[in-house]
Amino acid sequence: MAKEITIYDIANQLQISPATVSRALNNHPAINEKTKVLVNAKAEELGYRSNKFASNLRKQSTSTIGVIVPRLNSYIMSTVLAGMEKIANEEGFNLIISQSLESQKKEIANAQTMFNSRVDGLLVSVAFDTDSFEHFQPFLKKKIPLIFFDRILENNNCPSIVIDNTKAGYEATNHLIQQGRSNILHITGNLQRNVYADRLKGYQQALLENEIPFQKEFLWETALNLEAGKEVAQRIKAMPNRPDALFIASDLCAVACISALKEMGIDVPNDISVVGFNNDPVAQVIAPKLTTIHYPAKEMGEIAVKSMINHLKGTMNLDKTNAITLRSELIVRESSRIIEHSA
Amino acid sequence: MAKEITIYDIANQLQISPATVSRALNNHPAINEKTKVLVNAKAEELGYRSNKFASNLRKQSTSTIGVIVPRLNSYIMSTVLAGMEKIANEEGFNLIISQSLESQKKEIANAQTMFNSRVDGLLVSVAFDTDSFEHFQPFLKKKIPLIFFDRILENNNCPSIVIDNTKAGYEATNHLIQQGRSNILHITGNLQRNVYADRLKGYQQALLENEIPFQKEFLWETALNLEAGKEVAQRIKAMPNRPDALFIASDLCAVACISALKEMGIDVPNDISVVGFNNDPVAQVIAPKLTTIHYPAKEMGEIAVKSMINHLKGTMNLDKTNAITLRSELIVRESSRIIEHSA
Repeated sequence: MAKEITIYDIANQLQISPATVSRALNNHPAINEKTKVLVNAKAEELGYRSNKFASNLRKQSTSTIGVIVPRLNSYIMSTVLAGMEKIANEEGFNLIISQSLESQKKEIANAQTMFNSRVDGLLVSVAFDTDSFEHFQPFLKKKIPLIFFDRILENNNCPSIVIDNTKAGYEATNHLIQQGRSNILHITGNLQRNVYADRLKGYQQALLENEIPFQKEFLWETALNLEAGKEVAQRIKAMPNRPDALFIASDLCAVACISALKEMGIDVPNDISVVGFNNDPVAQVIAPKLTTIHYPAKEMGEIAVKSMINHLKGTMNLDKTNAITLRSELIVRESSRIIEHSA
Repeated sequence: MAKEITIYDIANQLQISPATVSRALNNHPAINEKTKVLVNAKAEELGYRSNKFASNLRKQSTSTIGVIVPRLNSYIMSTVLAGMEKIANEEGFNLIISQSLESQKKEIANAQTMFNSRVDGLLVSVAFDTDSFEHFQPFLKKKIPLIFFDRILENNNCPSIVIDNTKAGYEATNHLIQQGRSNILHITGNLQRNVYADRLKGYQQALLENEIPFQKEFLWETALNLEAGKEVAQRIKAMPNRPDALFIASDLCAVACISALKEMGIDVPNDISVVGFNNDPVAQVIAPKLTTIHYPAKEMGEIAVKSMINHLKGTMNLDKTNAITLRSELIVRESSRIIEHSA
């Protein structure tokens, strides 16, 4: 790499003092416009880089925020990240991003890397199998703020940013019941995770309120991906008493399931109605269009970074905040509107 | 933030020399196992962070790679990023990620931030409207390696990682012609960008080879998103002479278009066959399943970061590399297989 250019090099070439160069670069009012233009042009010509890196070392701050997500390439996570990047960028912060690939082991390594990279704060959505808080303790010890979002760990005094998954699960299930459905199969992910455990609670609550007994055989834990959707359809086909509705905790899994059911000659919504989760764009391009829960992913990312930066700047103290809950919304489309065949 | 723990604090508490602490932490063979265990335990207890940050400053290296993408939340880009993160993580590098939101103006600001953050290298896929290389010059001046991927800028001596978009466009179009189609509408993005310009070249080449005249009215530049797909269907419906096939340069746009066409009573593939691009999971969950070009996005991300790190480590010099081209593949599904109605 080429030698680093300093304000002394600029000062030397322009035959002015380093103090003047420094003030010109910082747009100080005591320096006249002509000098500022001259200094900035020379700085650009020489390839000068503002010495943020060294000044960060002095300030013990890096203006970076670490983010650990289960997967970068899921609709929800990539949308959350888009929201995070927008705010970070506006506020002059960098995001360092890593993925746990749904493994606590990798998440532990990621946390260690973030710690050594001296992030100013850490935002985490945990892996499928994370069952310990241990790897986040070093951050708390160093008073580096930690915020969980979407998939959270409880009982650790860290604020979390979530939607009300119980309410969303209740609304999805209740909607199916209102449409006259009572044999509602719930397809979900790992129930160790709050998002799935809470959606299940909401599902059970709606059944209970409507005096429909909860059946354990009507709760399937899956990987909630495209392949799982196809498998679910196969399993349903083989059932002697098929469900009349599905509440599936992910749209991608739901549309794959609908697609496979249709190929088997099972009509959606008339034979089986379906409600998904997330409001993934995919929900709008299949026939029938998918009823789903709108998940405010972009807003979640924006609020997570905004809260973190406000905390770092001292304009909002997170220490007393337990949780920030964002609004989700049931969006009714054709996959759950039962209409009689006109043929 | 709490006071930073140094090797002197550890040495002090254990009553050994700082040199011994330093060597123990670096797993030096001259230090016995018992001392290493003791030092590491004390380091963890005190919350010591390896001083990578300061040593980076001395080495003029940050072990970070900057990435600028048009959007974080597109299927292709989030998959490329997943591949990038995988390799970076394995190799002990951090990724700093930002998005241009398809605007050259924001891309210029992002490049400036990456420059001041002292990334060791920069990976870029350019915005819709980028028409200048100017904002990347400071990197070249400082000999900071720059690699373009997917959407590239030409004539700048930087290596690029791409698929053969011309070949892919040719194969998509040729396949439709082989199915007996000749009125093929091509829906694409901003033709300033290599990916769209090259796909168009392939489309034109296939027409030419089959003696089908190219018609300018059969080339539509759009935003290539979900909304554009719906609009395209509306425009097609209003045409006196409708096309018999569509080659659409993005799957999400293609499935939205198919969905809208079907609602209008236009049969896909019998009235209009469709070929998309990317092999987005969405291609497999609609009916009819979408014929498309498989885009090796994860592999592109992996190879981009691997090439960058090899260059930084000196094990592979990129200066002579012009382009790395990855293999794409036509995947034929139902949306382009013309079958007569059995009803």
